[in-house]
Amino acid sequence: MTIETPPQEQPQEHKTPPWNNRVLEKRATQLTLIPSAWHLPAPLFANPPASSIDTIRASCILSADELSWTEKADIRDLVELVKSGRVTSEALTTAFCKRAAIAQQVTKCLTEIFFDKALQRARKLDNYLMRTGEVVGPLHGIPVSVKDRFDVEGFDTTVGWVGLTNKPAKSNSSIVQLLESMGAVLYVKTNVPQSLMMSDSYNHVFGQSVNAFNHALISGGSSGGEGAPLGSRGSVLGIGTDIGGSIRVPSNLQGLYSICPTTGRVPWDCSFSHQHYLIPPVAGPMATSLATTEYFMESLLASSPWNVDPNVVPIPWRKELAIPPANRKLRLGVVFDDGVVKPQPPVARAMRETVDALRAAGHEGMVVGKETDHLSHEEREQFERTKLTLQTAVLKQWVSSEIDALLMPVLPWVGYKPKTWVRSKQWLGYTAMWNMLDYAGVTVPVARADRGLDSAGSGCNPEWEGHSIRNESDLFNYSQYDADLVHGMPICVQIVGGRFGEEKAVAVGKVVDGLMNPTPFHP
Amino acid sequence: MTIETPPQEQPQEHKTPPWNNRVLEKRATQLTLIPSAWHLPAPLFANPPASSIDTIRASCILSADELSWTEKADIRDLVELVKSGRVTSEALTTAFCKRAAIAQQVTKCLTEIFFDKALQRARKLDNYLMRTGEVVGPLHGIPVSVKDRFDVEGFDTTVGWVGLTNKPAKSNSSIVQLLESMGAVLYVKTNVPQSLMMSDSYNHVFGQSVNAFNHALISGGSSGGEGAPLGSRGSVLGIGTDIGGSIRVPSNLQGLYSICPTTGRVPWDCSFSHQHYLIPPVAGPMATSLATTEYFMESLLASSPWNVDPNVVPIPWRKELAIPPANRKLRLGVVFDDGVVKPQPPVARAMRETVDALRAAGHEGMVVGKETDHLSHEEREQFERTKLTLQTAVLKQWVSSEIDALLMPVLPWVGYKPKTWVRSKQWLGYTAMWNMLDYAGVTVPVARADRGLDSAGSGCNPEWEGHSIRNESDLFNYSQYDADLVHGMPICVQIVGGRFGEEKAVAVGKVVDGLMNPTPFHP
Repeated sequence: MTIETPPQEQPQEHKTPPWNNRVLEKRATQLTLIPSAWHLPAPLFANPPASSIDTIRASCILSADELSWTEKADIRDLVELVKSGRVTSEALTTAFCKRAAIAQQVTKCLTEIFFDKALQRARKLDNYLMRTGEVVGPLHGIPVSVKDRFDVEGFDTTVGWVGLTNKPAKSNSSIVQLLESMGAVLYVKTNVPQSLMMSDSYNHVFGQSVNAFNHALISGGSSGGEGAPLGSRGSVLGIGTDIGGSIRVPSNLQGLYSICPTTGRVPWDCSFSHQHYLIPPVAGPMATSLATTEYFMESLLASSPWNVDPNVVPIPWRKELAIPPANRKLRLGVVFDDGVVKPQPPVARAMRETVDALRAAGHEGMVVGKETDHLSHEEREQFERTKLTLQTAVLKQWVSSEIDALLMPVLPWVGYKPKTWVRSKQWLGYTAMWNMLDYAGVTVPVARADRGLDSAGSGCNPEWEGHSIRNESDLFNYSQYDADLVHGMPICVQIVGGRFGEEKAVAVGKVVDGLMNPTPFHP
Repeated sequence: MTIETPPQEQPQEHKTPPWNNRVLEKRATQLTLIPSAWHLPAPLFANPPASSIDTIRASCILSADELSWTEKADIRDLVELVKSGRVTSEALTTAFCKRAAIAQQVTKCLTEIFFDKALQRARKLDNYLMRTGEVVGPLHGIPVSVKDRFDVEGFDTTVGWVGLTNKPAKSNSSIVQLLESMGAVLYVKTNVPQSLMMSDSYNHVFGQSVNAFNHALISGGSSGGEGAPLGSRGSVLGIGTDIGGSIRVPSNLQGLYSICPTTGRVPWDCSFSHQHYLIPPVAGPMATSLATTEYFMESLLASSPWNVDPNVVPIPWRKELAIPPANRKLRLGVVFDDGVVKPQPPVARAMRETVDALRAAGHEGMVVGKETDHLSHEEREQFERTKLTLQTAVLKQWVSSEIDALLMPVLPWVGYKPKTWVRSKQWLGYTAMWNMLDYAGVTVPVARADRGLDSAGSGCNPEWEGHSIRNESDLFNYSQYDADLVHGMPICVQIVGGRFGEEKAVAVGKVVDGLMNPTPFHP
């Protein structure tokens, strides 16, 4: 395992930028935090398989038990293992540390690494359980990863800035404080794009994060470093943030389940800086099963987070709303294409297959977003003059449509190579629209790109081939589609549940997940 | 009844300001909207008693029934009268229109007057009830007044600006829409200070509003025009807004019950313009009984206002929290003096009497705000650097103190003559602190100023006489106190219930009200 040299600006005199040493030092420190026994064998490191799952299995660094525990998708199984004393938190934490360490070597997904501290806490929790027979909370002894946007006392929060290295946080973010009070074991922080403002997680401090399933492709952003360890099963639950798609984009790219909540539902110190953000950012869970995201929400809200974070709204997890209705079929709005950027063939197919499966099961799915529904340019300008006008207008439509949720793509694309994202005006309308409205959304993986089914240019996809380019973003999205490059990559649908509609979206997610994934989507 | 000439600027050439005619015209129109049969007899108009209650009773404009209906303090009694068919909405509305019309003649509390439209709606509601045997909602046929800050379709919203006269609103504010869907009959809008930014309601359009109980004193602000008709019983329920005390100050000055809620509880289009307001304004009920304010909140939240206003949080009225605990005594924090501006003697006495009564009934009241609890100037600056830091710090203290509520004055003063308020740096810390924190507060009238009990300078109030002036605001507050001037004026306590603590504050309000007002505080 080597230290990647940070990209160097090449001014006329070819000087090394002044921050170069600081970066090299940070990365060298990072490397020392992975025990040498967990370094990949040189040949595997030099030439790893495309998917980190294969690398992890081939590395022989994890025992069979460790592989088995870390590949459980439902966090409740792990909670039960620890609670019952069958597996110690120390053993479980070790397994996830190993797996995250390997994921880091092939995807560069981590920023802060604190395995020692994690194992120390795990042992403490094991002792407590042994001594009292009680767990400290619903996440007793379970490792949880967090995006490098949350403060963890004693560690950097760089958000990709060199200038913020070696400035350890003096206290914990509210969500970190709550995770710890729930018994979680924090062990890593995960990478982001510099300043968070891209869907491609690279920065001069920690370099380029890549996709868990194809190292030639990006892991997304801004919670992209969170997506890769989850995809690699180096984490069972990660906490990301979203202001325009930052939870949902990396979830989509790594086939994860996630909840992007309405503001006020999940504590996070920055969620409510309305003076700084016209559209407020939110924190939310990312995981390898819907059950994990729901367990997190339910446990979190049972811990009265409104007594810790002054901006959380006192609404518990309304379990009854998170159950699909027993006495009637679902009524869903469906958006195949938002009219701005046409989704690439695998995305279109994923949507089609999902809608077909829902209809075959008797659910109603009304296609919305037809030409006749579109606002005129003047109407749109009129609406967008104030966010509130838009929110009020959409709420009226939403309530009168009587839908359970809206089903739509997360992204119009499937995968990009590193540093492609920044090369055009990227369209985040599929996700950012819901941040603007402050509506809850859930991602559920439903399909994989398939070069046979989704090829372009072979005459089997006339609708894509005959597409008339709409604008600069649409042109870029169209021209970047490469069926071979993205073959096998996961695709999610987005289930929008309305404002404070987390439970509803989860209920619909359960139906979609059951129909599309009769066996687990991963591994 | 005459039209008051608007104050004229007197520039060097003594020109009439260009807006003068526009104001005269608006006031002339306003006068025509009061039927001549409801004009006060000339001698009474020329020389009215100090209290509008006495004026109303002396005027003989209302029948005995009309007097009796309008003097009921609990809105549920009126709802029952109409629902049972014993009184029509038309008769009830007529009674309140008469009474508001008289209040207007002596206190100048109204802006828009639309009795005709109200009576037309009342008849429609009566017909509906007669035909179907059903009410349209929990406020079926009940007149409700609203502050001139809410849009009522077809009428001006001037907020005291001449430039906004004759520009009728094109639609209803969300709260107005909801009031109507609940069956309410709107009939008047009420006066405010220009731009709302004072605790004294006067402006060039509608002139000076004065107190319902003493026309030499102000009615407060910014919902001051709302306070006067409520005090006069020309309204049973009024909707005000509060950004620093604007519901609580006029409620205090007219001895009203009110709820200043946390943002997200009561719909109002402007509550969430975070880009405009660092501290968001809220809407809330003002009334002559606590039961009325609770009935409003419960009914409003049962109507799913979150389906109309995109910023309302889906929390119903949690009735169980609004009941005083049966199995234990209350635990209250008490602030007698915030250390910045010393409350005048009647306010101090009102607090003392309330705390004594609570203690005698076995409740626990811990005095907070002692010198040792005060933040140093540096600490305060540190805390105030961001609102969130302050909110988090206070929440921590609040939760760890395990109090049911905080009991404190609303204001450090009892009453001002018109245009006194602007003459100094007014201290709104007793109320504005809670807007900053977004905590719910309730006002409950507990005492009246008494020249015998509260005199200064006679040696019977050494604590006040020996007071060392702290600052400019404190000096003004101290020097303005005049026991004769404010004799008999009502005084409220403020019960702060925490964030989303409306129900808790109401529960404590019930205990305080029961102890302090074994018979109704008014008429």
